Amino acid sequence: MNLTDLAKQMAFIHEIDKLKYIQRKTRLFNSERHENDAEHSWHLAMMAMVLAEHANEKVDIMKVVKMLLIHDIVEIDSGDIFLYDSQANHDNTAEEQKAAVRIFGLLPDQQAEEFISLWEEFEAGITAESKFAKSIDRLEPVLQNVSNEGGTWSEYEVKYDTVIKKTSKMKDGSQVLWDHTNYLFEESISRGILKKD
Amino acid sequence: MNLTDLAKQMAFIHEIDKLKYIQRKTRLFNSERHENDAEHSWHLAMMAMVLAEHANEKVDIMKVVKMLLIHDIVEIDSGDIFLYDSQANHDNTAEEQKAAVRIFGLLPDQQAEEFISLWEEFEAGITAESKFAKSIDRLEPVLQNVSNEGGTWSEYEVKYDTVIKKTSKMKDGSQVLWDHTNYLFEESISRGILKKD
Repeated sequence: MNLTDLAKQMAFIHEIDKLKYIQRKTRLFNSERHENDAEHSWHLAMMAMVLAEHANEKVDIMKVVKMLLIHDIVEIDSGDIFLYDSQANHDNTAEEQKAAVRIFGLLPDQQAEEFISLWEEFEAGITAESKFAKSIDRLEPVLQNVSNEGGTWSEYEVKYDTVIKKTSKMKDGSQVLWDHTNYLFEESISRGILKKD
Repeated sequence: MNLTDLAKQMAFIHEIDKLKYIQRKTRLFNSERHENDAEHSWHLAMMAMVLAEHANEKVDIMKVVKMLLIHDIVEIDSGDIFLYDSQANHDNTAEEQKAAVRIFGLLPDQQAEEFISLWEEFEAGITAESKFAKSIDRLEPVLQNVSNEGGTWSEYEVKYDTVIKKTSKMKDGSQVLWDHTNYLFEESISRGILKKD
């Protein structure tokens, strides 16, 4: 055992506890309270395992799970950015990159490099695994809003056109899930919980 | 696509949101609030990935991660059982088995069987993967208590002998982590946050 490496791993394990304090705009499926990033990451990992067969391309599902478990860790430093926030930069910002280096950098070098590389792959969204991971990340808030009488769509008055624009990337990872999501949009419009302009 | 299967998967994804409401007795690392089972499961999955090299036996780490992601889902029906509760039955109770069948049974048959089997393997604690998963499950509350001025040890007046008895299974999965935990116990005793009888 390398004691220094174990100490580094423990420091990382302690640090990432802070993900449990990062609040998202979306609420839990029964709308009682806001979701935090840690439980969100758990739910996405579960969804990826359950929905793997619907990926457009063959994916290494455990790589997708790893990606989803770590994908929001940078938000410990940079905070959650709301999907429908029209001001904030949703791209891979310098602040997020700095956060990745600081937080994953707590780990022994080889592990740090592995996690940073995995996070960068997710952000880039080019590989089959990252495209499917992003589909899952887009799907969860849709399910929450449908379950929550419109959720953030109602709360922030987000209309159908914007929702489509912000979620349509889902089809790059899974046409099946995107088709299902469109069915949910149509249903939501007829229920009056999602508005067309 | 089998529409019925997708509907079943969506029902499961909706149902497991309830894991976010199951409160544990332990508190987050900075002691502000109790931890819930979903964020706990996320943290254990992260710990398993980071600490994999310390398993006694060679393990399929992604199997460990899957186990840890699902290990507490039965508590949606059966509730959390506190490690230091001397009354409750910590074994694989009939109630938990019933919960596994009901909740995983929401999935298409093949997935349901796979998850139930994985959960049963975790509960039995015989395979290398389940032993390491259980080590991680024992380790997290120790780290939380050390970080929380004694946490549940102080709150429920749990003494050193009981703590050792309840956590020593950790060595079956990882001698390295058990040695480190014993170092933490000694340190906690000298800090006065863990009492000997």
